[in-house]
Amino acid sequence: MFRQNFDDELNDLHVRFSEMGMMVNEAIYKSVNAFINHDKTLAQEVIDADVQINEREVDLEKRSFEMIALQQPVTTDLRMIVTVMKASSDLERMGDHAVSIAKSTIRVKGNTRAPEIEETLAQMATKVKQMVEEVLDAYVKSDEKRARKIAKEDLLVDEFSNKIYKMCIKQMQEDSDTIIGSMDYMLVDSYLERIGDYVTNICEWIIYLDTGKLIELNSNSKEENVL
Amino acid sequence: MFRQNFDDELNDLHVRFSEMGMMVNEAIYKSVNAFINHDKTLAQEVIDADVQINEREVDLEKRSFEMIALQQPVTTDLRMIVTVMKASSDLERMGDHAVSIAKSTIRVKGNTRAPEIEETLAQMATKVKQMVEEVLDAYVKSDEKRARKIAKEDLLVDEFSNKIYKMCIKQMQEDSDTIIGSMDYMLVDSYLERIGDYVTNICEWIIYLDTGKLIELNSNSKEENVL
Repeated sequence: MFRQNFDDELNDLHVRFSEMGMMVNEAIYKSVNAFINHDKTLAQEVIDADVQINEREVDLEKRSFEMIALQQPVTTDLRMIVTVMKASSDLERMGDHAVSIAKSTIRVKGNTRAPEIEETLAQMATKVKQMVEEVLDAYVKSDEKRARKIAKEDLLVDEFSNKIYKMCIKQMQEDSDTIIGSMDYMLVDSYLERIGDYVTNICEWIIYLDTGKLIELNSNSKEENVL
Repeated sequence: MFRQNFDDELNDLHVRFSEMGMMVNEAIYKSVNAFINHDKTLAQEVIDADVQINEREVDLEKRSFEMIALQQPVTTDLRMIVTVMKASSDLERMGDHAVSIAKSTIRVKGNTRAPEIEETLAQMATKVKQMVEEVLDAYVKSDEKRARKIAKEDLLVDEFSNKIYKMCIKQMQEDSDTIIGSMDYMLVDSYLERIGDYVTNICEWIIYLDTGKLIELNSNSKEENVL
């Protein structure tokens, strides 16, 4: 009976964590769409919804803490709860970066547009969104191998980042009127790149969950990063 | 006897956490000095030392986990251990950003220098370093009020960031030869700004430690951020 109760609570914790992940994924997706389409209403929606993501983190934290204190789990059970505690902070910060993208959208004042760079940013965002979805799935399945594979995909995000950096530099050098607009593009690029880093962090927690080992994935990838 | 043992272990955990914090602080300080003085040897030192910071995080994680599993602490004791688990991840990532600054130093190829911007970056780094030292002290003393005060100082870091952004834009608009160099300055600026955000995270953990409440400090400050 005691064990059944614990398993139910643990399952509930996983479900709530996944739901939080989906809320964050939606925020990222919407924020980039808002930026690209200059949609300030949608951007405001992302900003307003962030309070729910924060509440979800607090709720997960509270539940995890109580489960540890009251049920005193050990080994794998304890590790599962610790992972939720750790990874929910990463999710929450991914949500914060979506908010930052939304805020850049609201701040932009009709700068010269660069459709090619915007298109590349959209592709980068699609890649990041796909990674977020994959990492949530790998978490639910506690799939260590998949987590390693997803973390490697972050190198593609870094490639997008480098490409956007070069496009922005070129554009700024050719036409100084585009400097402020290009800095905005670099800004959104840097937020997406950070979200990719958080996905990598969650991959590290999945490996920890599965093996008990804390490892650093992509520790050299940052060498390639430009912003 | 049991309690005495637990208290000793907890004290040891705090000491090790503080030591890790000092290692990170040194890495940040050295990386910015290396960048400003174009000192690639010092930059390499920061990169090489990061492995020790990572090992320290793994060690803290392991000790915390074992303390929870073996001693089954509740309430305040448990919260202290959870805080170390959470905040050590933040420290580790601050170290990663110091490495990123060091890597930018190694990548730079004799761009046109801008002494004024470098001076402002140095001031920003001094502020960040001071905040890191303060937050470690507030952690040791579990001083919630001080943590709130330190988090507010992050707004000064954001002000430095805005100032550097404006200086870089101006310089790039005036002379397109400075675009690549200015992007490097923006890059280092963004790493310092992220380190400031992590200090704010640790402030949040200190408040959690002291009150059991998870709150988000500076949630609106990002509105002012430019990168």
